[in-house]
Amino acid sequence: MEKTDDSSWRTLQTVEQATDIIQVLSELDGAGVSTVAERLDISVSSAHSHLATLHETDFLIKENGQYHLSYRFLHLGEYVRNNSDLYRCGRLEADKLADKTGHYVHLFTEEKETGINIYEARGEHAEDYDYQSLKLQRGEPLHISASGKAVLATLPEGEARSHIQQHGLEPYTDNTITDVTALFEELDQIRKRGYAVNDEEEIVGYCAVAAPIQTESDAAIGSISVAGPSRFFDSESDIEEVAEQAMTAANMIQVDLNMSTRAD
Amino acid sequence: MEKTDDSSWRTLQTVEQATDIIQVLSELDGAGVSTVAERLDISVSSAHSHLATLHETDFLIKENGQYHLSYRFLHLGEYVRNNSDLYRCGRLEADKLADKTGHYVHLFTEEKETGINIYEARGEHAEDYDYQSLKLQRGEPLHISASGKAVLATLPEGEARSHIQQHGLEPYTDNTITDVTALFEELDQIRKRGYAVNDEEEIVGYCAVAAPIQTESDAAIGSISVAGPSRFFDSESDIEEVAEQAMTAANMIQVDLNMSTRAD
Amino acid sequence: MEKTDDSSWRTLQTVEQATDIIQVLSELDGAGVSTVAERLDISVSSAHSHLATLHETDFLIKENGQYHLSYRFLHLGEYVRNNSDLYRCGRLEADKLADKTGHYVHLFTEEKETGINIYEARGEHAEDYDYQSLKLQRGEPLHISASGKAVLATLPEGEARSHIQQHGLEPYTDNTITDVTALFEELDQIRKRGYAVNDEEEIVGYCAVAAPIQTESDAAIGSISVAGPSRFFDSESDIEEVAEQAMTAANMIQVDLNMSTRAD
Amino acid sequence: MEKTDDSSWRTLQTVEQATDIIQVLSELDGAGVSTVAERLDISVSSAHSHLATLHETDFLIKENGQYHLSYRFLHLGEYVRNNSDLYRCGRLEADKLADKTGHYVHLFTEEKETGINIYEARGEHAEDYDYQSLKLQRGEPLHISASGKAVLATLPEGEARSHIQQHGLEPYTDNTITDVTALFEELDQIRKRGYAVNDEEEIVGYCAVAAPIQTESDAAIGSISVAGPSRFFDSESDIEEVAEQAMTAANMIQVDLNMSTRAD
Repeated sequence: MEKTDDSSWRTLQTVEQATDIIQVLSELDGAGVSTVAERLDISVSSAHSHLATLHETDFLIKENGQYHLSYRFLHLGEYVRNNSDLYRCGRLEADKLADKTGHYVHLFTEEKETGINIYEARGEHAEDYDYQSLKLQRGEPLHISASGKAVLATLPEGEARSHIQQHGLEPYTDNTITDVTALFEELDQIRKRGYAVNDEEEIVGYCAVAAPIQTESDAAIGSISVAGPSRFFDSESDIEEVAEQAMTAANMIQVDLNMSTRAD
Repeated sequence: MEKTDDSSWRTLQTVEQATDIIQVLSELDGAGVSTVAERLDISVSSAHSHLATLHETDFLIKENGQYHLSYRFLHLGEYVRNNSDLYRCGRLEADKLADKTGHYVHLFTEEKETGINIYEARGEHAEDYDYQSLKLQRGEPLHISASGKAVLATLPEGEARSHIQQHGLEPYTDNTITDVTALFEELDQIRKRGYAVNDEEEIVGYCAVAAPIQTESDAAIGSISVAGPSRFFDSESDIEEVAEQAMTAANMIQVDLNMSTRAD
Repeated sequence: MEKTDDSSWRTLQTVEQATDIIQVLSELDGAGVSTVAERLDISVSSAHSHLATLHETDFLIKENGQYHLSYRFLHLGEYVRNNSDLYRCGRLEADKLADKTGHYVHLFTEEKETGINIYEARGEHAEDYDYQSLKLQRGEPLHISASGKAVLATLPEGEARSHIQQHGLEPYTDNTITDVTALFEELDQIRKRGYAVNDEEEIVGYCAVAAPIQTESDAAIGSISVAGPSRFFDSESDIEEVAEQAMTAANMIQVDLNMSTRAD
Repeated sequence: MEKTDDSSWRTLQTVEQATDIIQVLSELDGAGVSTVAERLDISVSSAHSHLATLHETDFLIKENGQYHLSYRFLHLGEYVRNNSDLYRCGRLEADKLADKTGHYVHLFTEEKETGINIYEARGEHAEDYDYQSLKLQRGEPLHISASGKAVLATLPEGEARSHIQQHGLEPYTDNTITDVTALFEELDQIRKRGYAVNDEEEIVGYCAVAAPIQTESDAAIGSISVAGPSRFFDSESDIEEVAEQAMTAANMIQVDLNMSTRAD
């Protein structure tokens, strides 16, 4: 029994180290054996064993003595996305919404209390920003985006409150809502209107509108958003027009999700 | 020293098991502890430690007692793609080529002797096939596609020959080239013409045209392809028109890649 | 006489088994001899005789040792539909209504106390849901749809009450009417307005409006409905506009039915 | 063993009688007990047992002493259709082709050496003929239609020849091909052109064009046809234009079928 505990503990530590290496290689855009050993505070021989094994199992490639994450992560990432009901039922609607509005459209969900943009469609006015690419490769807090606030607004108040307490309300711009009371008033308004607005709260000069996607009348499984330069979201009527389109797309996805479940 | 070897050996085995678990969870679309233990022929307690650690490090989510790969793989996959020069310089050209032709366009490269479709753009006639989604989540042999043959044609003959000897020429349809001599004649023609054609060699009724993307005059770093129903690739002039467009896109990407390198 | 009884009893049992086999083959999407024997708890030789006879009489096809229902059922099904007065008089009106509204339109009737969608027309906004296909291949309760409630509302109260007592009011969504008193109030309103509304009572996010088709002033022989995402049924005026169109179609079909009867 | 044989023989006979009753009820558009007894040459009590059992199992309804086939056949027919790969992959293409051409479009396949129209789409010029409805409720020989000839043309010669020998070449109009040699010349031409033409061979004044749907390079799994009044098929260029559209639709369906198989 002691032995089992010990070996389990080893497992934990070794697997944790492997996942740390993956993290380090993504942060450094690749690294050699000694850099990895140093960063993880492990022996060079241990770092070498890890890297060699991850290379052998095709999770890494090696170029000029540097190890990098391989396309196996792309394959697993696409696998995860292709298996998401929200993606399967939402992709074409997101494409259509991008065509109609000309802007960026995101399918968004929450996983482990983090906001995840699982798909991005680009309309004809959607410029090619590096920042948008980064949004697909990392999670983000819920309070800074229309997508996130649309999801927050569908949570039971207790859950939303505990989420905010745990993660805080970090300011991204001067417009980011950093006051809990103000945020709850906003969530109330979102529930009333049926959509959320990001008024330059993440990026100055950049706005968004999002509608929650709810399979039942309770917590949303995600949201769909339209984002673009603030000039396109200037008046109430601009916003309402886009919001109508986003809500219709959300409704179409909701129906597709519910009919798929019923047809199984 | 002996101790080090022993611990390294442990590392290897434990990390290998972790990667096996990731593979198994993707094959089974999620699994519980006992299924994982059975599939890997390890103890339930060991499977539990692995799964708990991978869950703790956010590589897995747990739903109703089943573990699934998390969106962390999507993030790492997008990171790998965003760091690819071919993707950075090729994405917009791929989008344009899909707009022009109305078909599927793929950016393709080779990693560890396997063909990888790193990006897919869809034109207005591109139907939503599940098979196309799967192409983004797994590697494929080089000899069955226009993309792959375009890359093969730029390899030194010895390398191409050894690749084929190692991986064989599995038939996908009656048109798949399964004879080494015939394939080398085809590669020769591809070099002369500057583009490769897939004449229903992967899917009956489905064709493609691909142009290699070469930063120097030697081995291509990838290719760009246009694929659609065979009716659109019926005549020599149909094929040549698409080929011209693909070769122009490949040229644009090549220049972008080379200028980027010089600007660093 | 005893012999007759005995042979009648045999007949009953054998024919019942044959119909059970048809049911089992549709549930399992085909099956082999031993599976059928097991499912029906009959001998393999008996299962074989049944299957061979149903195959011989063209009700089954055999592929790789598995028996499947043949297209003879499609022929008999189309025969039954083509012989329905409601279908003959309602089809073109249903097509027109789908064209006008852009949504799904169903011709609906009751048989053996079950709701039957005998025809479906699709407008240009009607997405291709598997669930909609399934609605054509199985019966459904009357209380979950606008179509069903429109028919229920025309039944004498005693009949409606006994129908509900026998079949219950199973909830499909939170909006399904599961209270008898509430349902009777609703039926009263349907009679006053002349049409029934399904307010996300079958599928969350999906609504419908239906008008009864009555050849005389008593119990309807069926109904015609328009169904689509709830966004299109948002306001009272949206609903009334569609209801007007459905009631007009129902009137056209009613007249056609009554004139046909007179012309015989 | 003797007992088994005896009981099997009973089974065969009883099930055969049940299927005969279904056939008789469809031919007579319903019948009473004594008519059924007379037609099948069985005792009234036996007829009654059969009818009562088929009624009990919901395959029949009873109205004013007459038994009729119930909508259960429609449900089973729709089930069979919904489970057909050709229907699932071909329906939307058939709808599109009907929209484009304005005519009748049929998805057609062969089962037990009989031609089956599994789906019909109607364009805006498609008049509502009873004869077209009947085409959906019964099989037809292969030599009288463009659909059938398109399928025949893909069979190995021996198979086509034996089919014709067995089923003959019954004339429907003066244009029906009733000569074996002439038919084989026609099949040869169909293979060369890639499509079949029905030149008033089934109905005087009515023409059609069909393209075979082949998942592999051998025998077609079906065909797709466009049919309308001969005035619309007057010139070679009229025919070729429709044929191009039919062949494109067949190609799209072929690709969808093949990609679906690969994605499984």
